[in-house]
Amino acid sequence: MRNSEPIEKLIASFRALPGVGYKTAERYAYYVVDADMNEVKELAENILTAKTETKFCKICGSYTNKDICSICQNRNAQTICVVAYPKDVAVMEKVKNYDGVYHILGGTLSPLENRGPDDLRIKELLARIQTEKTKEVIVATNPDVEGDATAMYIAKLLSPLGVKVTRIAQGVSMGTDLEYADEITLSKALEGRIVIS
Amino acid sequence: MRNSEPIEKLIASFRALPGVGYKTAERYAYYVVDADMNEVKELAENILTAKTETKFCKICGSYTNKDICSICQNRNAQTICVVAYPKDVAVMEKVKNYDGVYHILGGTLSPLENRGPDDLRIKELLARIQTEKTKEVIVATNPDVEGDATAMYIAKLLSPLGVKVTRIAQGVSMGTDLEYADEITLSKALEGRIVIS
Repeated sequence: MRNSEPIEKLIASFRALPGVGYKTAERYAYYVVDADMNEVKELAENILTAKTETKFCKICGSYTNKDICSICQNRNAQTICVVAYPKDVAVMEKVKNYDGVYHILGGTLSPLENRGPDDLRIKELLARIQTEKTKEVIVATNPDVEGDATAMYIAKLLSPLGVKVTRIAQGVSMGTDLEYADEITLSKALEGRIVIS
Repeated sequence: MRNSEPIEKLIASFRALPGVGYKTAERYAYYVVDADMNEVKELAENILTAKTETKFCKICGSYTNKDICSICQNRNAQTICVVAYPKDVAVMEKVKNYDGVYHILGGTLSPLENRGPDDLRIKELLARIQTEKTKEVIVATNPDVEGDATAMYIAKLLSPLGVKVTRIAQGVSMGTDLEYADEITLSKALEGRIVIS
């Protein structure tokens, strides 16, 4: 063991963060040890507060610290953008000209991982479209097999309701993750969306 | 603000970590929000524990959670490797064939930053060499202007004591930071050390 036990334990904790290896975790740990006590306390508190105060919006399912998120509170549901995970909302919000709401599925259809329609928030989407008189549903799942299958499933499901279902298209290159797309790519993808039902 | 206040606050805290920008901090924050409550608590606790339990070894000045670090406790001080910062100890310890102890200066001489010999743990080094009958002092400061100046200063200071002063040399390329050197480079640098006093 190169470091004292408390430092090695902290390194192990930091390694759980996405994309963090031993060396990076060690740098973070040394930073913590060297930092002001107040700053360290704030970091620890902010971690706990973010975890305990973050809930899922009762309408769309995205992260919020209230019952209903600020987007659902302030925008109408004429257009609903359907995404797989709460984190995708912040990604899509980079597109400044989108003023609709979101609906978080909680994942994508995956036969391999045994995830069917009942495991996603699809019933909630259906109910929402009917009560809100939604005109368009934009499916913004990742451009991969699961994301495409999910989009097709939603399109089929919603076609009897007379709601337009579109899929973000041009600009998002196949196989990449939505999270890494830049604003321009996302903006183009929104503009070039194609009707799938 | 793209995220709720608790999440934005956590992102701001994570951004203080070395090399972490907004996007990376946001990924870490989402990880925290998605993680198990127990894991999150452990992360927060490990941060606080590492900070509160880490002290400086009374002999060498490196990080430890005891009064005297395990290296000072278990090895003799015939050879002392002098480094600028506590984090450099873990870096040098990657060289498996080094079995001496360390001495942390707490920085390097820097006229620009107004840091002179009295601001470094040089008196402690001198006292230690005399009581421990040290045979060799290896100066392993960064290969830059300040690191070199510090090495020369120590060499001059120790020359009347008859102790051999060496400087790690071959392999550490000019201008890089010690922290990023690989094991082989460090091992070569140790082997090829040259007498400077």
